[in-house]
Amino acid sequence: MTRPAIGKLNIRKAFDQIDEHWSPHIAANVNGQDVRLAKIEGAFEWHHHDGVEEAFYVVKGAFTMRFRDRDVSLAEGDFIVVPAGVEHMPVADKECWIMMIENAGTLNTGAHENERTKRDLPTLKGAE
Amino acid sequence: MTRPAIGKLNIRKAFDQIDEHWSPHIAANVNGQDVRLAKIEGAFEWHHHDGVEEAFYVVKGAFTMRFRDRDVSLAEGDFIVVPAGVEHMPVADKECWIMMIENAGTLNTGAHENERTKRDLPTLKGAE
Repeated sequence: MTRPAIGKLNIRKAFDQIDEHWSPHIAANVNGQDVRLAKIEGAFEWHHHDGVEEAFYVVKGAFTMRFRDRDVSLAEGDFIVVPAGVEHMPVADKECWIMMIENAGTLNTGAHENERTKRDLPTLKGAE
Repeated sequence: MTRPAIGKLNIRKAFDQIDEHWSPHIAANVNGQDVRLAKIEGAFEWHHHDGVEEAFYVVKGAFTMRFRDRDVSLAEGDFIVVPAGVEHMPVADKECWIMMIENAGTLNTGAHENERTKRDLPTLKGAE
């Protein structure tokens, strides 16, 4: 078989490449799932992803995942999976660094498209 | 829709539940991918996963991913994707804590089955 490139990326250092909040960057793709990194601060908006689960892992800082019926506080090292179709809204009082796992192509704003929608997500440099 | 449970797991604390090396535990499932945690120490064995990519993220410590044509050193925070079908062997001089992402059902020993094969992987407790 053709030998594919095997790179590595340091997740914490990769955040240096991100200079905008709410702008997911692609760190890797694994079996059709994107591993995305984002810096978040402030409140996003209510949205859901039809048929797609979305995992969040807190790399640095903390944030609250709001659901319609409760809030879940997430600290550094916490991992949560938002079930498909469930409305959620991340809110970070201070800048927080997160890793996400979700189907490649999933829109950050879910079923809505608006001025916060990000298309053609940038891929992080650093694989060697 | 039925309201699914939404839990969170602290990845670092979850390692307290793992008391054996080379025994992957399931932290979450996301769109058919397992997120697995394992403590590793020493050398595993050469293996590959047909048709399945396998991602590794170093939560604590360091290890070397050996490939047939090179070694890749991985430190805390490093992330690497092993392409499908590519032989690899993780080696950790000291205990190292890793997170893996791969298709649910993937055998830890890949195409081989032997005494290191783990079936019916335990699921980590801690989701609330």
